[in-house]
Amino acid sequence: MGTQTQSNRYEYQIKLAGGTIRYVPLRSPEGESTGCVSGNDWNIDIEELEQAITPQTKMIYLNNPHNPLRKVFTRSELTAIGNLCVAHGLVLLSDEVYERIVFPSESPTSRNVPHTRVASLSPEIAAHTLTAISLAKLFNATGWRVGFIVGPEELMRPVIGTHLVLAYSSSGPAQDACVVGLREAERIDWWSTNARDVGARVGKLCHTLDKIGLTYVAPPSAWFIFIRIHNIMLPEGYKYFPLVVSHGSQDWKVCYFLVHEFGISCIPGSCFYGPENKALGEQYLRLGACKSDDGLDLAARRFERVRPYIRDI
Amino acid sequence: MGTQTQSNRYEYQIKLAGGTIRYVPLRSPEGESTGCVSGNDWNIDIEELEQAITPQTKMIYLNNPHNPLRKVFTRSELTAIGNLCVAHGLVLLSDEVYERIVFPSESPTSRNVPHTRVASLSPEIAAHTLTAISLAKLFNATGWRVGFIVGPEELMRPVIGTHLVLAYSSSGPAQDACVVGLREAERIDWWSTNARDVGARVGKLCHTLDKIGLTYVAPPSAWFIFIRIHNIMLPEGYKYFPLVVSHGSQDWKVCYFLVHEFGISCIPGSCFYGPENKALGEQYLRLGACKSDDGLDLAARRFERVRPYIRDI
Repeated sequence: MGTQTQSNRYEYQIKLAGGTIRYVPLRSPEGESTGCVSGNDWNIDIEELEQAITPQTKMIYLNNPHNPLRKVFTRSELTAIGNLCVAHGLVLLSDEVYERIVFPSESPTSRNVPHTRVASLSPEIAAHTLTAISLAKLFNATGWRVGFIVGPEELMRPVIGTHLVLAYSSSGPAQDACVVGLREAERIDWWSTNARDVGARVGKLCHTLDKIGLTYVAPPSAWFIFIRIHNIMLPEGYKYFPLVVSHGSQDWKVCYFLVHEFGISCIPGSCFYGPENKALGEQYLRLGACKSDDGLDLAARRFERVRPYIRDI
Repeated sequence: MGTQTQSNRYEYQIKLAGGTIRYVPLRSPEGESTGCVSGNDWNIDIEELEQAITPQTKMIYLNNPHNPLRKVFTRSELTAIGNLCVAHGLVLLSDEVYERIVFPSESPTSRNVPHTRVASLSPEIAAHTLTAISLAKLFNATGWRVGFIVGPEELMRPVIGTHLVLAYSSSGPAQDACVVGLREAERIDWWSTNARDVGARVGKLCHTLDKIGLTYVAPPSAWFIFIRIHNIMLPEGYKYFPLVVSHGSQDWKVCYFLVHEFGISCIPGSCFYGPENKALGEQYLRLGACKSDDGLDLAARRFERVRPYIRDI
């Protein structure tokens, strides 16, 4: 069972293992229709989560900070989710790969939430939790493919067994580099420096969106911005790629229009929802700020050209 | 269905996917009891292989050059195996990760067999074959975890789908390094230079074994030597680790004795056979020559100390 929005990779891994996944969506705050809100203001309904548990349920998958909203879950939300796992005897797989890239400053519309490892909340929750960490992601080097999972011995045993057979190990030199990185990070205050730097990049891209009148979910943590598309006016009679037309929804059409006409590449918001909740994502696109300063300047110039297609709000 | 001896990783992968594996062993040549033979003289019985095929069989797994015998299969052996797959509609997964580290010179006891990609033998065989290549292994950098699989589109589709979900990608920097490696290898004649260098290291270790009176399967390709243990005399009343005693067989005991008393680390030969053929491996250990010159000199000094436990043959 997964909390959405999130990457669809897990869905296919669960299918490969013969399981099925049920999604419980995060929803935008009541009354939010056009303005900028924070990802932290999106909420999961804990009752809905509990009602989705069946006797077949084995695991709840949680992504915190969350992709693509970048929501950082509060201690009380995490306690509620953790206690559900304890009460129902479920494994909690907590994907916390961006735990160290939470922005320090409070945005005007946002509650500032520090990141909490759910496994730290109580010994009972810890006994049910596997925490996934990505060193590659924390060091802004996703492609290095180095990470680890921590958890109690009995939950780790099948993880180790499966990992040994499927992946065996990640790249040795990249592991060595990450060991040095971990050793040096505290000494040179890398974690907070990097969080500030990532925050500045994301802020720069948000500023670009503000200028041309696009609203978005203000991200409280690393790299991604969920953009609202309700006021992007697509030209009438525009010719889309057949695949885009077959998907039908507005988010796919806007993505195609942006990449094809302006060289701005996004991911349709509905990609982050399962089939039953797709409609929740159709008014959004995911944009990434993981670019150089030059790249972000180029993005600003390209978005400037999108302005004629944006209706004032 | 797998041709043995071989690594047990495949067995567990097949089990994870809900399948079962049947092994068809390679056997030492008739009359070989004490002397050194070549890995190329070990044979697979093609009739036995065909008889092991059932209506449930989906795939034959072949390792060429073979681990740990280092046998390089002949064109006629490969043609027979490939044609079996064509006749029975099976996928042939040909693990050829050491294809470029085949020794150039003929050993006294060996037929010199050049490596042939089984998929190159006929269009029909190619249509049934997936060929696995490891760039990391070819560049003596196993821990870099870079490799690829080639095959016809319809066989590759499930490979790509599964890879994307389970591994997604290998380390980016290591991939970049391998691209440079491939580009430079031809220019600086790396493939044959490296095969000669690996051959020299293996030869040095074989010479150490010759000097103290241990016989072995002379390896026609990279890195590993299958040592015979029939004339290693273990001290009476020697105390083994409980795990070793529970495995019971002589190969486990000799391995423990060698690592514990002399710091020589090997793998028991029976580890390379499935349960039904374990006895075929119990008279062997696998030793690796993937060491620096200093490491090989140290090995020579340590093996010298083993001599009192070796009976003349």
